[in-house]
Amino acid sequence: MNIRMTIYILGILLFFEGVFMAVPTVTAAVYHEPELLLFAVIAALCLLAGIVITRFKPQNKNLFARDGFVIVALSWLVLSLIGALPFWISGTIPKFVDAMFEAVSGFTTTGASILHDLAPVPKCMLMWRSFTHWVGGMGVLVFIMAILPLAGGQNMYLMKAESPGPSVSKLVPRVRKTAMLLYIIYFVMTVAEFVLLLIGGMPVFDAINISVATAGTGGFSCNPAGMPYTPFCINVITVFMFLFGINFSCYFLLLHKKFKEALTDELKVYLGIIVFAIVTITLNVRHLPMFRGTGEALMHSSFTIGSLLSSTGFATVDFNQFPVYSRTLLVMLMFVGACAGSTGGGIKVSRFIILFRNMGNELRVMTHPRQVKKVRMDGHQVDAEIIKSVHVYFAVYIMIYVISMLILTVDGLDLTTNFTAVVATLNNIGPGLELVGPTSNYDVFSTGSKCVLIFDMLAGRLELFPIVLLLAPSTWKK
Amino acid sequence: MNIRMTIYILGILLFFEGVFMAVPTVTAAVYHEPELLLFAVIAALCLLAGIVITRFKPQNKNLFARDGFVIVALSWLVLSLIGALPFWISGTIPKFVDAMFEAVSGFTTTGASILHDLAPVPKCMLMWRSFTHWVGGMGVLVFIMAILPLAGGQNMYLMKAESPGPSVSKLVPRVRKTAMLLYIIYFVMTVAEFVLLLIGGMPVFDAINISVATAGTGGFSCNPAGMPYTPFCINVITVFMFLFGINFSCYFLLLHKKFKEALTDELKVYLGIIVFAIVTITLNVRHLPMFRGTGEALMHSSFTIGSLLSSTGFATVDFNQFPVYSRTLLVMLMFVGACAGSTGGGIKVSRFIILFRNMGNELRVMTHPRQVKKVRMDGHQVDAEIIKSVHVYFAVYIMIYVISMLILTVDGLDLTTNFTAVVATLNNIGPGLELVGPTSNYDVFSTGSKCVLIFDMLAGRLELFPIVLLLAPSTWKK
Repeated sequence: MNIRMTIYILGILLFFEGVFMAVPTVTAAVYHEPELLLFAVIAALCLLAGIVITRFKPQNKNLFARDGFVIVALSWLVLSLIGALPFWISGTIPKFVDAMFEAVSGFTTTGASILHDLAPVPKCMLMWRSFTHWVGGMGVLVFIMAILPLAGGQNMYLMKAESPGPSVSKLVPRVRKTAMLLYIIYFVMTVAEFVLLLIGGMPVFDAINISVATAGTGGFSCNPAGMPYTPFCINVITVFMFLFGINFSCYFLLLHKKFKEALTDELKVYLGIIVFAIVTITLNVRHLPMFRGTGEALMHSSFTIGSLLSSTGFATVDFNQFPVYSRTLLVMLMFVGACAGSTGGGIKVSRFIILFRNMGNELRVMTHPRQVKKVRMDGHQVDAEIIKSVHVYFAVYIMIYVISMLILTVDGLDLTTNFTAVVATLNNIGPGLELVGPTSNYDVFSTGSKCVLIFDMLAGRLELFPIVLLLAPSTWKK
Repeated sequence: MNIRMTIYILGILLFFEGVFMAVPTVTAAVYHEPELLLFAVIAALCLLAGIVITRFKPQNKNLFARDGFVIVALSWLVLSLIGALPFWISGTIPKFVDAMFEAVSGFTTTGASILHDLAPVPKCMLMWRSFTHWVGGMGVLVFIMAILPLAGGQNMYLMKAESPGPSVSKLVPRVRKTAMLLYIIYFVMTVAEFVLLLIGGMPVFDAINISVATAGTGGFSCNPAGMPYTPFCINVITVFMFLFGINFSCYFLLLHKKFKEALTDELKVYLGIIVFAIVTITLNVRHLPMFRGTGEALMHSSFTIGSLLSSTGFATVDFNQFPVYSRTLLVMLMFVGACAGSTGGGIKVSRFIILFRNMGNELRVMTHPRQVKKVRMDGHQVDAEIIKSVHVYFAVYIMIYVISMLILTVDGLDLTTNFTAVVATLNNIGPGLELVGPTSNYDVFSTGSKCVLIFDMLAGRLELFPIVLLLAPSTWKK
């Protein structure tokens, strides 16, 4: 382990967390809220700590795979711990574990909340909640890499450990430039949504919050009334939820007019899933009394599907009231998640493609042993290492799922609540079904269970390995 | 495909199905039931058809992997179709799909029933139901192999396709002798249970039925009153459920006094799971009003765990009323299932061991790339092909699970019912939770859903691949 380098990067992280806190500080100033001082002080302390720590530049800047995992896991822990302080110190969320839950939920772009009522929550706190989504969506270390020339040429390990999907596609040969490009696309798309929402008549405060939360596929609400917006705005959010669930390298390819390459196998399957889900769920729910006609059913079904598949977690309707087909399919979509290289969570479409293509190949080999075929994606052969890592991913996923489910049962809540609470946190979605459905919240759980769900959110966002490896004894052996 | 050889083996199968029907025929004679004639006629027709078909001996007796899968899948279909006839023709089960459900449930040792009340069911029908468990438990083709010198040296493909577990351990070099040894152990253990149950005061008819059903890890009940037996009998059944869930090669090794080798890694984990489950579930349920004290809670918890882990599916208590921890753990045990090479169902303990050991190795490699280790079981390195096939197994399992769940939703039943109905059939257990809990039955489902569950039971018993490959277009390509 390169400990000095680890501390150095955590110092940079603290500095940037101070920078990020400018957003709620400004919000507090605009709305004349008393929390202004609190945010300003925490921000200043972060900046100061960051500057002091980064004074000690390590001589050995080499990072290996192990360092990458550990640094990413620790960074996200520190990020969340500091991020929870405003909620806790201000008294907005009196219990620290709850504040931590909310902060982790924010940075991991989960959007699961323990707050019962948003009405008494200051606007700066709401803004901080939403903004953590934006920071966490594309990855905070990716952000740092986009700005600073970090460590030699080995930033790739950091990017690999923080980016979603079975493999990281470097858009351009240099990691720093890739990181910057990703953030530019991210920023432009966020602004585009913001402008469209303004055009749709959404208040500025809500439009900022919703845009950054959609961009990070977060899902924290900013309005005590829920989503009281015009159909135009609802549809804009729907479209952007789908868009932020797409691999950002597709946008990069589109910008370079490589239209054919942009339509990757993963994107085709993702779009296929969307169409299938929208058509069948709309047909399934159109007679429900909550909808006036098929048009409205279509709008809200699409919204719900976009929300759960992209792991955003916004809700315009109580999908817990949907018929069992829709509920079942929605839970399955929660597992699938968005595309690799997007800001969305879940297991990722590409992992399922690799899993099932490999399955098809192996089944064929069973009956035709001499016809050995390789798994292909986008015309290229998929590396055996990647297939292996996908299988390991599923194994770790099952392990975390089983342990989480068992611990949650201590609270005595029903099976469906526990089952969907784990999927909704481990896949960074937010709402589940029953007691954690869109009209309820995670305060039903005990402190111990909340800690489990905090672990699940972090594990999910960092794609399991960094968090699991942080706890594995073998990681700390020489 | 060797079609002539396939038909030849199906002929042998028909012949033996005729032989098996002697059991209900004799039962009908003993109890003077009018179904005697029906069973005698069907048995005679099976024998006749078998004799006629096997007259045409194929010259080419070579079987390849593909033939193995197809023959096994077709055999089980034919076996069940014929096995369903007595239920249907006698009017015991008026609808054919229901009769087929019951027969498949019997042969696959699932024990899920569509019958509401056993009181009006003739004893010969109950005996036939239970006996199908015994036939299906160790495998009908294994039985045939034990008796006949089938196909050259390539019986292994048949055995492989019909036997549970990621790999088949040949006890002795010759397949036929292995099959015979397995059946001898099976028979002796069944008789041992029968004798113990008689000693415990169980009526002879019940003792026969319960013994053969436990041996096959089936679960059909034979008594309209459920399990009204003495605690001694209950405990005997519990012990034998656990015993029939153990790899039969362990017994073979024990017989040869190889005690150390008999305690395989899988057996250790299996026993560990049992102890953990019994202790925690007993503690969790001991205060329930259905139990008078911890002793009774221990007895029924152990029974339930033995029943679900070994995939037998008997029930002495309504475990649907257990607290959520117990319910959750029980559902998980249903997925785990018994040991490979036992008569039990489920994914099998050894597959989970391979999955998690491989996971541990791969995680270690992530942080220490130069420390490549191999997965080991019982001191031997696990073949890469087996690890691969375990991963493919999980992928196919997920695929079947998802599709089954989605189709079942058409009936509009609740999520937990559907979820546990699929696990209970795909793992050949029998009862699930809620509407398919131990006090209810599978008649709640529509005809279409029953067909899906029939598919799941067959897929589960044959460990997915033969049934899936039967449907795969690639299997039928040259």
